Amino acid sequence: MKSIGILHPGEMGISVAVTAKNSGCCVYWCSQNRSIQTRNRADSLGLKDLNTLEELCRTCEVLVSVCPPHAAIEQADAVIAAGFTGLYADINAIAPATARELNRRLSDAGITFVDGGIIGLPATVAGTTWLYLSGPDAEQIAKCFSKGPMEAVILGSEIGQASGLKMCFAANSKGTAAMQSAILATAESMGVRDALEKQWDIYTPGFTEKSHARIRQVASKSWRFTGEMHEIAATLAASGLPPEFHQGAADIYSRQESFKNVTSEPSLEEILNKLLEKSPDKHSEQ
Amino acid sequence: MKSIGILHPGEMGISVAVTAKNSGCCVYWCSQNRSIQTRNRADSLGLKDLNTLEELCRTCEVLVSVCPPHAAIEQADAVIAAGFTGLYADINAIAPATARELNRRLSDAGITFVDGGIIGLPATVAGTTWLYLSGPDAEQIAKCFSKGPMEAVILGSEIGQASGLKMCFAANSKGTAAMQSAILATAESMGVRDALEKQWDIYTPGFTEKSHARIRQVASKSWRFTGEMHEIAATLAASGLPPEFHQGAADIYSRQESFKNVTSEPSLEEILNKLLEKSPDKHSEQ
Repeated sequence: MKSIGILHPGEMGISVAVTAKNSGCCVYWCSQNRSIQTRNRADSLGLKDLNTLEELCRTCEVLVSVCPPHAAIEQADAVIAAGFTGLYADINAIAPATARELNRRLSDAGITFVDGGIIGLPATVAGTTWLYLSGPDAEQIAKCFSKGPMEAVILGSEIGQASGLKMCFAANSKGTAAMQSAILATAESMGVRDALEKQWDIYTPGFTEKSHARIRQVASKSWRFTGEMHEIAATLAASGLPPEFHQGAADIYSRQESFKNVTSEPSLEEILNKLLEKSPDKHSEQ
Repeated sequence: MKSIGILHPGEMGISVAVTAKNSGCCVYWCSQNRSIQTRNRADSLGLKDLNTLEELCRTCEVLVSVCPPHAAIEQADAVIAAGFTGLYADINAIAPATARELNRRLSDAGITFVDGGIIGLPATVAGTTWLYLSGPDAEQIAKCFSKGPMEAVILGSEIGQASGLKMCFAANSKGTAAMQSAILATAESMGVRDALEKQWDIYTPGFTEKSHARIRQVASKSWRFTGEMHEIAATLAASGLPPEFHQGAADIYSRQESFKNVTSEPSLEEILNKLLEKSPDKHSEQ
């Protein structure tokens, strides 16, 4: 029975913890500096609280980092500083180059690194969420997540492949939502949104409704997408492709950060108004 | 019977000319400096050749500009220089600000301007291609295109609305194709394209095939999309939204300009290889 520590049990972290429990692991977390929401989630699942990161690092053979991309390196550095020497998986939305940087830092400290990336929403049933893994030691992490509901898949033996796949998948889904919201806001400001949506639906019946649903669904998560879009831009740039698409997407998501923690989905109109707050006055410009 | 001159009968121009003929107009063109392909197209339709732009401007009450966006202003300036004083419609893929600039120049020369934008491929049957028009004199142009197959729609009385709608529609269709090709090229360079496409199809059955088809379909037209992407970027920027999405798209299309005039659609692999030509050597970078 492997001892595994989850850093940290947010909504996605809980899904990771459940899968590890199902797969026969003893699952720990540490409550120091975490929010009451995180504590409630961890308690409801019966995760064992080891209070501090130091204690978690002493107890666990395996640590899994589940955090917003902008915190991934800081999290690894804290684990190094706490003296961990086991197996560390980063399954966050980071660029392959960031994964390789984590590998360098952790390896230097005697920690074995596995690259990972999650595709899908927090899993409650099988066949909806995938945990992709890569690197020479990916199999060791896959064993901790063998029983679902998250489906562990080993992608290859190179650090960066799992992160790379995650980046490409999110590049499309979140990039598309961002670009469509920018286009709808532009159409709105020019007074042609109705005509655009009518034309969209002539070409692809239901397109407008799907587009609105996608844009509204991500609004409350935008605060953590800005960093992810920068990681994606860096991923495309490293392959010699233009980073601009996702620099634009980062801008779109950063404008929506005030939707963090809203209790119900904002309306499309609220989102477009938010995007247009910076907009120049069209009439004075003409 | 209105006399109308088409500048110029390219593939889309021919579709415009057919609709004008169907609607009872006498349709002219001028062959000076045009290619043999353009001449063949015009001849096959029985358009009357007036040889020079000066002659076309003397004969026609109405001129319609159908050209790549980067040539739209130059075309209008040439018409002004040729002494035209009738009704001029620009139906190219240009930013509303470019349409307003055309309106200023043409109005100063005593020419009446109508803004237009085409959505759809060259029309052969009704219900597939729309000619959107806007401006105080839009009705006069709509009358010349009342009998199809292109469907003329008056969008409003403001110069810029028709161009704005066209920009937003193309922003999505051509922006999406460009972004997806950038993502596929990135995945290819990281060795995870198969995994990405498999995951796309799990989420949306048929997504990969549709994506490939869209990317391959636009490759041979990329040479004239670069300018259009810059017009779209300017359109978003004028509304205070990020221009970066379509700056990235302009880069993607400019890399494919060598596909101009290919006789059959390039394969997806040929397109991705073209996009990756600038790519740094991944192994030396690591």
